[in-house]
Amino acid sequence: MALYSIILGNLGNTCDRFLSSGYKDELPKETLIKQASEIDGVTGVELVGTWDVSPDNVDKVGEMLDKYNLRCVSIIPDHFSQKRWGRGSLSAKDPEIRKQALDYTFECVEMARKLGCKTLNIWPGQDGYDYILQSNLITERRYLMENIQKVAASAPDIQFSLEYKPKEPRNFSFMARASDTLLLAKETGLPNVGVTIDTGHALVAGENVAESIVILQEYGRKLFHMHFNDNYGNWDDDMIVGSVHFPLYVEALFWLKETKYTGWLSMDQYPYREDGQGALSESVAFLQMIESKLNDQVLSELRELVNTGDAVKSQRWLRHTFFK
Amino acid sequence: MALYSIILGNLGNTCDRFLSSGYKDELPKETLIKQASEIDGVTGVELVGTWDVSPDNVDKVGEMLDKYNLRCVSIIPDHFSQKRWGRGSLSAKDPEIRKQALDYTFECVEMARKLGCKTLNIWPGQDGYDYILQSNLITERRYLMENIQKVAASAPDIQFSLEYKPKEPRNFSFMARASDTLLLAKETGLPNVGVTIDTGHALVAGENVAESIVILQEYGRKLFHMHFNDNYGNWDDDMIVGSVHFPLYVEALFWLKETKYTGWLSMDQYPYREDGQGALSESVAFLQMIESKLNDQVLSELRELVNTGDAVKSQRWLRHTFFK
Amino acid sequence: MALYSIILGNLGNTCDRFLSSGYKDELPKETLIKQASEIDGVTGVELVGTWDVSPDNVDKVGEMLDKYNLRCVSIIPDHFSQKRWGRGSLSAKDPEIRKQALDYTFECVEMARKLGCKTLNIWPGQDGYDYILQSNLITERRYLMENIQKVAASAPDIQFSLEYKPKEPRNFSFMARASDTLLLAKETGLPNVGVTIDTGHALVAGENVAESIVILQEYGRKLFHMHFNDNYGNWDDDMIVGSVHFPLYVEALFWLKETKYTGWLSMDQYPYREDGQGALSESVAFLQMIESKLNDQVLSELRELVNTGDAVKSQRWLRHTFFK
Amino acid sequence: MALYSIILGNLGNTCDRFLSSGYKDELPKETLIKQASEIDGVTGVELVGTWDVSPDNVDKVGEMLDKYNLRCVSIIPDHFSQKRWGRGSLSAKDPEIRKQALDYTFECVEMARKLGCKTLNIWPGQDGYDYILQSNLITERRYLMENIQKVAASAPDIQFSLEYKPKEPRNFSFMARASDTLLLAKETGLPNVGVTIDTGHALVAGENVAESIVILQEYGRKLFHMHFNDNYGNWDDDMIVGSVHFPLYVEALFWLKETKYTGWLSMDQYPYREDGQGALSESVAFLQMIESKLNDQVLSELRELVNTGDAVKSQRWLRHTFFK
Repeated sequence: MALYSIILGNLGNTCDRFLSSGYKDELPKETLIKQASEIDGVTGVELVGTWDVSPDNVDKVGEMLDKYNLRCVSIIPDHFSQKRWGRGSLSAKDPEIRKQALDYTFECVEMARKLGCKTLNIWPGQDGYDYILQSNLITERRYLMENIQKVAASAPDIQFSLEYKPKEPRNFSFMARASDTLLLAKETGLPNVGVTIDTGHALVAGENVAESIVILQEYGRKLFHMHFNDNYGNWDDDMIVGSVHFPLYVEALFWLKETKYTGWLSMDQYPYREDGQGALSESVAFLQMIESKLNDQVLSELRELVNTGDAVKSQRWLRHTFFK
Repeated sequence: MALYSIILGNLGNTCDRFLSSGYKDELPKETLIKQASEIDGVTGVELVGTWDVSPDNVDKVGEMLDKYNLRCVSIIPDHFSQKRWGRGSLSAKDPEIRKQALDYTFECVEMARKLGCKTLNIWPGQDGYDYILQSNLITERRYLMENIQKVAASAPDIQFSLEYKPKEPRNFSFMARASDTLLLAKETGLPNVGVTIDTGHALVAGENVAESIVILQEYGRKLFHMHFNDNYGNWDDDMIVGSVHFPLYVEALFWLKETKYTGWLSMDQYPYREDGQGALSESVAFLQMIESKLNDQVLSELRELVNTGDAVKSQRWLRHTFFK
Repeated sequence: MALYSIILGNLGNTCDRFLSSGYKDELPKETLIKQASEIDGVTGVELVGTWDVSPDNVDKVGEMLDKYNLRCVSIIPDHFSQKRWGRGSLSAKDPEIRKQALDYTFECVEMARKLGCKTLNIWPGQDGYDYILQSNLITERRYLMENIQKVAASAPDIQFSLEYKPKEPRNFSFMARASDTLLLAKETGLPNVGVTIDTGHALVAGENVAESIVILQEYGRKLFHMHFNDNYGNWDDDMIVGSVHFPLYVEALFWLKETKYTGWLSMDQYPYREDGQGALSESVAFLQMIESKLNDQVLSELRELVNTGDAVKSQRWLRHTFFK
Repeated sequence: MALYSIILGNLGNTCDRFLSSGYKDELPKETLIKQASEIDGVTGVELVGTWDVSPDNVDKVGEMLDKYNLRCVSIIPDHFSQKRWGRGSLSAKDPEIRKQALDYTFECVEMARKLGCKTLNIWPGQDGYDYILQSNLITERRYLMENIQKVAASAPDIQFSLEYKPKEPRNFSFMARASDTLLLAKETGLPNVGVTIDTGHALVAGENVAESIVILQEYGRKLFHMHFNDNYGNWDDDMIVGSVHFPLYVEALFWLKETKYTGWLSMDQYPYREDGQGALSESVAFLQMIESKLNDQVLSELRELVNTGDAVKSQRWLRHTFFK
């Protein structure tokens, strides 16, 4: 079985633009960590800056993770939930904000080291633009690349995995698609800069997840991390895996194996109104149900199917292999 | 088990705007009919006007259906594949064209009677518009309603099932969504005018198929017919059922049963490059796999799930009930 | 010129799920009202329940509106920003919540009367569902209709304008599209229940705004209210009018005039990071730029264009009529 | 003024999957060429293989272009309209098909040379897949790259401009987005391989056209060619420029100038039911209307706007600068 993890905040309260207090109650951090540890098959968590971890509490958080026998899979620096980042963080027009964003990212590197965590999952959600004619597309995209380059060059012990998403909270993100982000990662010229696929973001981008996996792996083994969830296709609904789609997860897990991905399969959801622990458990269980079928014989059948390309055969095979 | 049928032309050649000759070879009509009859569980076919059936050959087609023990489930009048309908048929600005379209629809009624077929599935694909400021939205929509009213009033023995689709071949169709089309059906004031849901068209319209089923049934039992296929969400890709989505088909079949739908489950696909018979067979098999699970116990569990509304429970239930 | 209004809260702070504190600072209510009164051409405001107006402050708000010479165009009951509505308000599974939602709506009627306001703009954003198999689609849709019917029947002096939106905050709204909502409005059997079109919601629904206007007016003059904004098509980005699209606004204003709509043109935006007053002013100015051109001669040309249906002529006409 | 061209076939007959005979009549080739030459501002044409030009008629076509004083801007090899390419051309699973596709591409190089044409616009529309588990994503993407590399390496006098499009005729294209295609172009290691942006394809991909221009130019000046049209956002409707959107064309032309693009602005539409010459003329006129405003003063204002990023100012500026 692959390594499974979750994003800690998924277990807590979640809000949206209409209900800023959130749909649920705030839970103590230790409760969240305990809940994470109870999910069958989960051995790691991702921590979001500010929300989950900060220089002030990092040691304490580390102790709690140890207590519950969880690894810190990644830190996701908070480049998105503070007013100062509202018009961009690492790519902001304002040089003072860019400096603050860079300094803060260095702090996250330190936190990662303290937690024995090897990955910073960089999602600069505020870096982009909303309106046409609002961005100097050349200079701002360059700021983003250069700042990532700076911090990654200074921390060769840490992997910087860039998470793309076409939109939200900005109408256009600078890191929007697998290949855009791969280009930026390659432009840094650094081996420790790669890309995170979030299956839901890929769907919103119109990508076939398996193809994004292959592109990232073929152009220099740049797939550093995976986030899993499901949605209806046009928006990042952040739902339970398998609640909308099915065959795409089979194809994705197949190509992860074929391209020898050895990283984490991490759940990234927004269970606004659901029991968080249940929602994450169910996603893990769904993926493990698929993964458990992918033995050597089945993998060999899958290779045959993709080489043959007969959709009727593939659908029949899926039906016989997975459905009762 | 429900009654299963297919659209005959799905077994034949299919083209697109780039390859007008089609991806496959033309097959003799009898071959198509024979192939239809060979699909496990299929007992009826739908015939498209011009392509499959016309006043000239209707008797002969009827004999072939008898020979292969197939019922004619519906005739789909050809309001879309002739140059004269290019700017609309029943709603065309040109009164001469509207008259021709109406006359032709009457002809289809006659053909249906000859074939012992009870349904005309009306899909006026050319009735709509492409550009802003191209349509007199009031008068053209009214033409469409009035012409359907005329023919339906004159043929109370036939059911007129209006098939909606948001776009293609026009950028905007007048019959675009379940509720728009229901309004038009109700405006005719006739009991023999209802609506067809094509699951793929509903997906493109952003509808949840089950909800469209419920709306049509609750506002006067107006769901007359069902077309099944799958797609990626933004376009009518006309693919094998279950090749993209899964849970929606469970929910759709559940609500068909709950609302006491007794019509056909008909396959409507465009297997451009696939073996047509195989593609249709697989769709039927997928739906039958689901339907076979919906016994009294399972239906009662489903009722409990929709009344509880706990997504975690529903997903777990789906996984345990359908997956190996 | 038509009557122009804005939603008061658009001038204040706005948040999203990643930045719950909001991108801007909170301003005193009187400042918001003063700013509204300063926008050229604006003579009315819409007030959102809880956010802008509640039984406690309604008299004071009324005094401020008088002071700044603004009419209260509508109250938008808060069926969406309270934790108790998280799983639905007027259609909630829980009867106690439904009762609270109904009681609260009656309170809004009282507030409207106090403010001399004739319209309740009902947007039950939490009424819908997120997951497949999460809703009893029959009973919950019925609760929604019946509760609207109850309150509207008891307040014939107030217009109840139902605002549809395909999704957000739920993945599927019960009031999702123009025609769905019209069906529900008609089902109440009450003359004082109609529909609000939000241009952005219509775009997300794949509707052509002008056609939605025509449908609502033709089936019983049910277009009660208009909200204006723009977006990129797949999400309710709530942007400045004209910042993405152009010809659709010409066609919409044309058909509003043709169908003799006499209601308000109200701006409904979410200027997350923009100066609110500026963003709303610019939308009003854009619409007034178009409206100012629609004199008798131009209206007659537009009638000719929609009756002719020649897209080349229409585009040339748009270019010559509107562009320098 | 920039150099303007059109795709010749846009003037002729056009079909779709429902009306394979096409909506219009076939016109003699010389009529098409004459019509192209009559469009104000147009000085070049693009020729589609098979449809417009083949080894048999290339000399004659060249003579006609000379007669009407038109340059051949590009040849678009026919990798899409023949039955043999139905499951792929340059990336087909079948080595014999790949060989044929490669041979045919070499033939197109020869035709280009005969016509004094410097560009092959490669749009391998059939290269991709429809179903999940239908493609060996590694080997087939590699075939595509290697075959382009082979032909481009052998013809350093010709520019190979790769045109991306997310889907249609396949549900997933291998050249789907600007950055994917740029990666492939760069992987060839050849200076004469670049990318074509079709504005409509970019919209379907969810890209902001200006940003795609910038990305291609910044990563090695790889924007070789531009196709212009408009659509509603989710499908390649191939409409008249400006018939749906407006500000995006201003921003696109601005960044073309800023990044010193000196290639053609070519119209690529599918005027199914419109007068082809009129539809193309109107697109050219719309772009020239914008371009004519972009003098030094206005360009300097635009630079200020994108550096400031104030959406209210930008919208006001657009209104004042372009609208009467």
